[in-house]
Amino acid sequence: MASSAVAELKTTPRLLLGPGPSPVHPRVLRAMSTPLLGHLDAEFLVIMNEVQGMLRAVFETKNPFTLALSGTGSAGMEAALANIIEPGDKVLVLVNGVFGARMVDMVERCRGRPVKLETSWGQVFEVSQIEEVLRRERPVKAVALVHAETSTGAEQPLEGLGPLCHDEGALLIVDAVTSLGGLPVEVDRHGIDVCYSGTQKCLSCPPGLAPLTLSSQALEVVKGRQSKVQSWYLDLSLIADYWAEGRRAYHHTAPVSMVYGLREALRVVLEEGLEARFARHRRNSAALLAGLAELGCEPKAAALHRLPSLNCVTVPSGIEEALVRQALLRDARIEIGGGLGPLTGQVWRIGLMGEGSWPEHVLALLFALERALAAAGHRTKPGKSLAAAVGVYAKEE
Amino acid sequence: MASSAVAELKTTPRLLLGPGPSPVHPRVLRAMSTPLLGHLDAEFLVIMNEVQGMLRAVFETKNPFTLALSGTGSAGMEAALANIIEPGDKVLVLVNGVFGARMVDMVERCRGRPVKLETSWGQVFEVSQIEEVLRRERPVKAVALVHAETSTGAEQPLEGLGPLCHDEGALLIVDAVTSLGGLPVEVDRHGIDVCYSGTQKCLSCPPGLAPLTLSSQALEVVKGRQSKVQSWYLDLSLIADYWAEGRRAYHHTAPVSMVYGLREALRVVLEEGLEARFARHRRNSAALLAGLAELGCEPKAAALHRLPSLNCVTVPSGIEEALVRQALLRDARIEIGGGLGPLTGQVWRIGLMGEGSWPEHVLALLFALERALAAAGHRTKPGKSLAAAVGVYAKEE
Repeated sequence: MASSAVAELKTTPRLLLGPGPSPVHPRVLRAMSTPLLGHLDAEFLVIMNEVQGMLRAVFETKNPFTLALSGTGSAGMEAALANIIEPGDKVLVLVNGVFGARMVDMVERCRGRPVKLETSWGQVFEVSQIEEVLRRERPVKAVALVHAETSTGAEQPLEGLGPLCHDEGALLIVDAVTSLGGLPVEVDRHGIDVCYSGTQKCLSCPPGLAPLTLSSQALEVVKGRQSKVQSWYLDLSLIADYWAEGRRAYHHTAPVSMVYGLREALRVVLEEGLEARFARHRRNSAALLAGLAELGCEPKAAALHRLPSLNCVTVPSGIEEALVRQALLRDARIEIGGGLGPLTGQVWRIGLMGEGSWPEHVLALLFALERALAAAGHRTKPGKSLAAAVGVYAKEE
Repeated sequence: MASSAVAELKTTPRLLLGPGPSPVHPRVLRAMSTPLLGHLDAEFLVIMNEVQGMLRAVFETKNPFTLALSGTGSAGMEAALANIIEPGDKVLVLVNGVFGARMVDMVERCRGRPVKLETSWGQVFEVSQIEEVLRRERPVKAVALVHAETSTGAEQPLEGLGPLCHDEGALLIVDAVTSLGGLPVEVDRHGIDVCYSGTQKCLSCPPGLAPLTLSSQALEVVKGRQSKVQSWYLDLSLIADYWAEGRRAYHHTAPVSMVYGLREALRVVLEEGLEARFARHRRNSAALLAGLAELGCEPKAAALHRLPSLNCVTVPSGIEEALVRQALLRDARIEIGGGLGPLTGQVWRIGLMGEGSWPEHVLALLFALERALAAAGHRTKPGKSLAAAVGVYAKEE
């Protein structure tokens, strides 16, 4: 059998500074290599409780319904929408990038009626714009938006959105895939009803689980549904029976090793502390952007709305971006991301997420990028980019 | 923050002889601790190709569409059904345990019309019974059945089912969660159109991925759909674009570490060889059943239709089964499963899957179970059960 001859796994070390996965802490990798408990073992149930408690801390919520779904961030998005929407429900979706557009697709597949509020990629929405559409389109079941748009690097402000939605009788659904653990999400303070994320971004755990939290109002909506959720696998009322202490009814076999990894990743996050972690993400992003400016790369997102975790910047004119990315990977073993959709070929997406967000990684990237750009014929003064980044670090100390 | 005080991960070693997860080979755990490549890295795409090739070998198929879904076996079931079924489609589902019943639920959620063919738990279906219903219910879009019913330990014979379904214009969908890698599934020989499994059973990889293969006929049905698949996350036409060599379009972030683990698990399977592996599963199951008979435990499944991977046996009368399972876990650190649904309290489900299926584990379990039963007041002659198992091993050599 030819395929039995597949050789042992050998991989090149990579510095993962793309849109995710981010570098995983060695402690997380080690935790994942722990021999397995059964998914209904009393010891494993304690581990689930611990994960739930730590997820609440990171989401900054008291929601009892807080858990990790057995799928990636996109499964989190689908669970969030499919459990809330029933056929015919109107859902206001804010679209300013790939992931807002994905939400619209999912709303349609749930047989909801999406109302799109759009703006150009890299821009964000004002509260007043949302308010206007909400009033015009009454009744709206839910407002769905992406907090951290991975395709553009834009951060949608959440201030005031919870009360606005609730006044209109709508639930607020927030995608925090590229923000949770890297910048404040503050589920309870903002009145978010459904919030989900992925493990492979600012939590620096491998991809495979989707942290998810539901407010009591959202849970009431799920429990009061007239129709069954179309997905059995993502049916939150069934999944809740497995995660709820005292019940632990078998639904599907939990991905035990991934839960071990997430548990350790959350420990790492909380040992650092959220405030310190957020400050670290801001500082490294500021240094990176200062350095990139010297290379002719400008942020795509509007000022004041730039994600520290995902830096989406323009490619200097005349440069074929894919060749530069290939050179970075080949010569410096650094991964960064290209553009998606209309931004293909125009931008780079540089993730400084979790374990990716450290000064040495910023410097390594600026050094390698300067050389790759020089090799591609782009004129820059050697070392100027690094000096700009170092200047930011010096100023902040 | 109280939850930051969660202590380091400490788990008790367990011998996992329940209905899954099964014990994971140390090489698989080690592979999972490999630092991550990006999910679009050329090196990772080679790894995906290797996984696909090895999955084809294990499924015994030439299907180009063979991959690992980013979810557990239940996600595989949902993908299999949701991608084939359009609203109004009639699907014949064979129900003789928990997982057949789950299929009916999923067919309904896909707005298909399930036609149930039922028999009592532990029994299997004759070809003629299926044929009769197929003729009566024309046209039937698909026949869905569980090859290895984890809730009863029964193996549904697959011989002749592919041609029968195809003559009736129906697709054959087979759940091989508890069979793949432990007993023959032979996708191509049986004419199976959609076959899925889980990683945590006879493949001895942690739970989290669902191997899946589609025949060209099934793929045509998926591509010719009138309506979008209701699940975006499990939409196989989108997922195919990521797994297809030469395309690799971003869909969702693949669970990189789990793919590393599966790759190593498949290498272990193919190094042993399928025939040797199947023989090992049969031999250890025979020894276990011989030993269990001496303890008063009889197989639930009909003779000739007993799964070597999942031995579902009756609890001796007068024994409170949960207490015995607790004693096994506490005193011998062995996990076995209890009954589901109508079999709750009546049976034990003892998995001998992959790395769980070795003589030393059979002997360890019989020794521990004999002691636990004796402590519970059940009379057995010490050592008789072990002797019976040893006798089977002696005879086969």
